[in-house]
Amino acid sequence: MTRPTTRLDCEALDRADPLAAMRDAFHLPGGVVYLDGNSLGPLPKATAARVREVVEEEWGVGLIRSWNDAGWFDKPRTLGDRLASMIGAGPGEVVVCDSTSVNLFKVVVAAAQLRPGRSVVVSDRDNFPTDLYMIEGATGLLEGYDRRLTSPDGPSLADVLDEDVAMVVLTHVDYRTGHMHDLTAVTEQVQRAGALMVWDLAHSAGAVPVDLNGAGADFAVGCTYKYLNGGPGSPAFVFAATRHQDQVSQPLSGWHGHARPFAFVPAYEAAEGISRFLCGTPPLLSYAGLEASLEMWAGVDLATVREKSLALTSLFMDLVGQQCAEWGLEVVTPREPDLRGSQVSLRHQEGYAVVQALIERGVIGDFRAPDLMRFGFTPLYLGFAEVWDAVTALRDVLEHEEWRAERFHRRASVT
Amino acid sequence: MTRPTTRLDCEALDRADPLAAMRDAFHLPGGVVYLDGNSLGPLPKATAARVREVVEEEWGVGLIRSWNDAGWFDKPRTLGDRLASMIGAGPGEVVVCDSTSVNLFKVVVAAAQLRPGRSVVVSDRDNFPTDLYMIEGATGLLEGYDRRLTSPDGPSLADVLDEDVAMVVLTHVDYRTGHMHDLTAVTEQVQRAGALMVWDLAHSAGAVPVDLNGAGADFAVGCTYKYLNGGPGSPAFVFAATRHQDQVSQPLSGWHGHARPFAFVPAYEAAEGISRFLCGTPPLLSYAGLEASLEMWAGVDLATVREKSLALTSLFMDLVGQQCAEWGLEVVTPREPDLRGSQVSLRHQEGYAVVQALIERGVIGDFRAPDLMRFGFTPLYLGFAEVWDAVTALRDVLEHEEWRAERFHRRASVT
Repeated sequence: MTRPTTRLDCEALDRADPLAAMRDAFHLPGGVVYLDGNSLGPLPKATAARVREVVEEEWGVGLIRSWNDAGWFDKPRTLGDRLASMIGAGPGEVVVCDSTSVNLFKVVVAAAQLRPGRSVVVSDRDNFPTDLYMIEGATGLLEGYDRRLTSPDGPSLADVLDEDVAMVVLTHVDYRTGHMHDLTAVTEQVQRAGALMVWDLAHSAGAVPVDLNGAGADFAVGCTYKYLNGGPGSPAFVFAATRHQDQVSQPLSGWHGHARPFAFVPAYEAAEGISRFLCGTPPLLSYAGLEASLEMWAGVDLATVREKSLALTSLFMDLVGQQCAEWGLEVVTPREPDLRGSQVSLRHQEGYAVVQALIERGVIGDFRAPDLMRFGFTPLYLGFAEVWDAVTALRDVLEHEEWRAERFHRRASVT
Repeated sequence: MTRPTTRLDCEALDRADPLAAMRDAFHLPGGVVYLDGNSLGPLPKATAARVREVVEEEWGVGLIRSWNDAGWFDKPRTLGDRLASMIGAGPGEVVVCDSTSVNLFKVVVAAAQLRPGRSVVVSDRDNFPTDLYMIEGATGLLEGYDRRLTSPDGPSLADVLDEDVAMVVLTHVDYRTGHMHDLTAVTEQVQRAGALMVWDLAHSAGAVPVDLNGAGADFAVGCTYKYLNGGPGSPAFVFAATRHQDQVSQPLSGWHGHARPFAFVPAYEAAEGISRFLCGTPPLLSYAGLEASLEMWAGVDLATVREKSLALTSLFMDLVGQQCAEWGLEVVTPREPDLRGSQVSLRHQEGYAVVQALIERGVIGDFRAPDLMRFGFTPLYLGFAEVWDAVTALRDVLEHEEWRAERFHRRASVT
């Protein structure tokens, strides 16, 4: 089909969509077009049943025995292996644990051991702030270490990569703009300068194809509650390339990362392999949510997801251009497919109120200060006609200046 | 009543028990006497409904809006305040987050800032190993810092407390023996030496009365999945006395501990008060489990719990003495009430197999190498007649040497 220009065109695209049946795997409230799966993915139907099973059977009946009998002890590894196949990692290279923030701390301190004599961690001023904060926390404890930031206004990565740089930490897909780095090219650029490459895949896992080992990446962290639909605050993950695992230790050296956690010896001895990145006891109800969603993902072809994702984001940008041109929205997300993830961001000086007005109409996106409206496009449960409806709602909000209503200007603590 | 010597005596105690009705608040599988609530508390009936509500309503319908509308963003603080009242802390002194291990790391690095010029963290060789491992991890990053361990064979705390000691980290109730420190006396001894006192309350919260502020404690951490029944791996807690909070920073400086987490500025600025001990996004399904159990605890008088706990553990020790004397069990837990928590540990060289044989009979305790059988006594759901039945089962296992069966000697990875 050429570019769709009517809702009927969009409906035709939905009928031809090979992923259309996946929508039924989700619980989605009526009257909602959910464009915030880049912040919190919706509830897969299988999840409620799986969580209930863990609560009522594994915990309620199995009690302490479930640490063995239900495989609780191994969940960080078994879920890590499932997730590995979605990000181009191998078995034994990923564990699911803690938060993205905590995992980045482990990785920064661990990676520093591989580059003695260097003492700079590079990131970008526009990286997701918690990454910057964790780098601050980690470098504050590493003797002589500094944080050095690139920025769109300069300096560039090429400007800052010198023989002091131990590692570069970047988020693959920018949380505000949706801009996507070239994973392979950046990894190569960084490693050519003698540094290690650490990727944050928060906005990539389940959203775009990722091939960590293909790119030769060193470490990665990421979150599972966005495109992976693991549930609010579901546990994060950490990847360490096999070649590095037994060369490093990490300072959050809790008993689940010990070589013999149930020997209860007083001295820490790191487990072999990726398990040494574990720390404390895993929150198993939250693991249950992720487990159900990863089972759903197991049958999904990521190339098909990417193809539809690009079609959805292209359609949104096209329709915004056609229908909302006169209200001066700036499309911040790159039009070039290779340069964007699975979201589209629009700049508008009244963006906060516009997003609130859209939410009242059931079109849920979100806002990032000072002026960005973010819309996530998630191929498993979103259709082309919904994109049409979202743009129609946006046009109405702008055309009738609905965003001027006072109730859309009271800011809640979280948006 | 004088010391009960028959099952009928025990049944009479159950009838007179002011906490007897609480048992109905729990889901307990039939045919089980659960003496492992010191490792994983059982499922409160209200929990299944609360978790379902968070999954199906707050996540499934509320979606991203629940960060505000369902109070997700504040859960670490609201649950922290509820928990505070159970451990003698004030509002704004406790947050629920991460694992006990991760929280101890934060506390050790934070506390070190309050004692410049000192560089030793003291703990005990028999402390729960993850505490020792986290102290290793933290001191490894603190310039010039060392770990110094006391031990039952010496040195004692008095031996090691000198002007180099910045802090002492001890678990209030020993996970193996059930021995309980005098919280006030030890805190005073440590502070008199110019050091800070950090308590691990893993085996105390919900088990014994704790008065952190009464004792003038500096910091504390603890777990919620044992006596508090929060669910497998439910989030841990951290206490910092109000006087210290704004004097320290902690290195796991994630966005949830930022003064303005949604301003998305590149530099970290610690939130005021206890919130600065937060790090990443909280695992909300696991919080739901804890929330339900803390609601149940809100109506419970801890002095009544302690009184029954002592009666249960006394009864168990008495009955073991009466019925199992000939098999050479050593009662490791102190008989003196002020010196013990809410568990009883027995030493037997075939302890592992004896515990397995008891589990097969439905009496669930656990084992800690090399030779300790642990039995937790949890007044909310355990009765006196069950204690009788547990000792009867133990006597049978010993009398008929049931533990010799080969199936009880195959070790699982977790016990």
